[in-house]
Amino acid sequence: MQGYHIAVVGATGAVGQELLRVLERRNFSVASLRPIASLRSVGKSVRFQDESVPVQELKEHSFDKIDVAFFSAGSEISRKYVPIACQADAIVIDNSSAFRMEAHVPLVIPEINVDDVRGHRGLIANPNCTTAIILMALYPLHRAFSVRRIFAASYQAVSGSGARAIEELKRQVEMAAQDRQPKPEVYPHPIAFNLLPHVDSFLQNGYTKEEIKVQNEASKIMHLPQFRASVTCVRVPVYRAHSVAVSAEFEKPVSLERAREALAKAPGLDLVDEPQNHRYPMPISVTGKDNCQVGRVRVDCAFENGLSFWVAGDQLLKGAALNAVQIAELL
Amino acid sequence: MQGYHIAVVGATGAVGQELLRVLERRNFSVASLRPIASLRSVGKSVRFQDESVPVQELKEHSFDKIDVAFFSAGSEISRKYVPIACQADAIVIDNSSAFRMEAHVPLVIPEINVDDVRGHRGLIANPNCTTAIILMALYPLHRAFSVRRIFAASYQAVSGSGARAIEELKRQVEMAAQDRQPKPEVYPHPIAFNLLPHVDSFLQNGYTKEEIKVQNEASKIMHLPQFRASVTCVRVPVYRAHSVAVSAEFEKPVSLERAREALAKAPGLDLVDEPQNHRYPMPISVTGKDNCQVGRVRVDCAFENGLSFWVAGDQLLKGAALNAVQIAELL
Repeated sequence: MQGYHIAVVGATGAVGQELLRVLERRNFSVASLRPIASLRSVGKSVRFQDESVPVQELKEHSFDKIDVAFFSAGSEISRKYVPIACQADAIVIDNSSAFRMEAHVPLVIPEINVDDVRGHRGLIANPNCTTAIILMALYPLHRAFSVRRIFAASYQAVSGSGARAIEELKRQVEMAAQDRQPKPEVYPHPIAFNLLPHVDSFLQNGYTKEEIKVQNEASKIMHLPQFRASVTCVRVPVYRAHSVAVSAEFEKPVSLERAREALAKAPGLDLVDEPQNHRYPMPISVTGKDNCQVGRVRVDCAFENGLSFWVAGDQLLKGAALNAVQIAELL
Repeated sequence: MQGYHIAVVGATGAVGQELLRVLERRNFSVASLRPIASLRSVGKSVRFQDESVPVQELKEHSFDKIDVAFFSAGSEISRKYVPIACQADAIVIDNSSAFRMEAHVPLVIPEINVDDVRGHRGLIANPNCTTAIILMALYPLHRAFSVRRIFAASYQAVSGSGARAIEELKRQVEMAAQDRQPKPEVYPHPIAFNLLPHVDSFLQNGYTKEEIKVQNEASKIMHLPQFRASVTCVRVPVYRAHSVAVSAEFEKPVSLERAREALAKAPGLDLVDEPQNHRYPMPISVTGKDNCQVGRVRVDCAFENGLSFWVAGDQLLKGAALNAVQIAELL
């Protein structure tokens, strides 16, 4: 059997499931698939290429004879098992934040910094979903005008918190129809018909980890140590696409025409920007789509060399599984 | 019978209904109530002080012997009938955007620019709901540090589009549970589990009217002609409270401690800011509340003298009906 021996850690989760679909859809050359999850999922199977593959428990020897291991089971699991997988000579593509900022670990969005993959030492990190979606639109503008800083507010789908959060929103909405309010489990407050200005945990400086990740990861991916991002991350009652309102300040004078040109020809991005005809990016229109969408592009009225835009992307695809598989395809 | 003869134009709408509740709750001295609406609502009644009051059709003579007329029926109706009400010697409090920016019309948030009411010529304008909610938190900070510009992204409830939009969200959510998608009527796209970066109509410069209102109205209310606001307004699947993520740049160096002090003692505002204990403003916690809530206060990481915060307020109350009644109480 030709191809790669693949392990997927977190195979039963929202990202893991999407990863299997992306591997199938892009005809990734898979010789064997080892779906791995916690003890809780043992006994379950996952569907892959019309076969049912039993889930294995994550163990020390899970990576024997594996060529490529995808990790999507959170930072704690990655911190413990990524080194074990690397030791077993698997190349790891890690979707968690555990190693993203380590100097020797490439953090890659293939459309932006493909060259950073070279010189990897067996571990490549996949960026945070909000960062990836912002950069798909920001980077082409940066190439044209040289970005200095951004202000961004995110509108993040529950898929970002995993399969249980998707179920939680669904259940809360159903029970709201009966005037009942179930106790939240995944989030500290109800998410149905509500907003939580709270994604990931809070830092001493009042920002959340998620908010600071945008600045740090975007700096690393764009090779811009001076880049500044002031971000507010908000969970919204949407199932699986993230959206972000961005105002960006540039070094060079901006032109709306050139901005639109740069966005229109950017890979992995669709310019959907005819507001007069009610055409702009929306979560429901990017759900299930590989490409992110950008719209509402305008000359910013508070920055001197500024542009504002609205970008949306499927959090499970470009924000996670698709980008991970694109990285694997580079190897 | 003592008190004022009151007319409410748009009495059957979402704001009109809330206005009646606010008049009752604050024991506004009402001698008589004339609920006014379009022909479509004639035959209906509204409840007021335990009585059922029949709705009258809006006509030229609707304002005879009226002391105070509240308008909440949109700009077109206001443009036509506010002058008629003024001619009939009613004092008009207009919730529409029709006259807000006219130089001789005071635009008032009582907690901020109460003195502007003086010298009114029979017409006082109520600000846009998003503007009002932002300013409830921004103005105390401006007093402390002198604001120059803000970046803001709004998360606006469907109540801002009226009673039919509230029904539309409810119906779409119910039908989604049966995997059906009803044709949107109020909005151009589904709002359930979706986001629309589209509030009010689009201008030549790519901003919406709603977005530009924040800059223009905030300038007027704060008496700050140089104030700049770059805003993205987004409709979200929330029933009736607006939230806004704001980053503000000030003339003077900021201090987090002084910012929190200023917000804590600001009238009409509650500081809800213990993120470590999962306490921050949310739509469901401000719904039905007179006070707005501010939280997530932090020193901004992209502005030199900057603060970021998250403010939420009941769109139908401080964003509309409550502010209008507070203005009437000043007269």
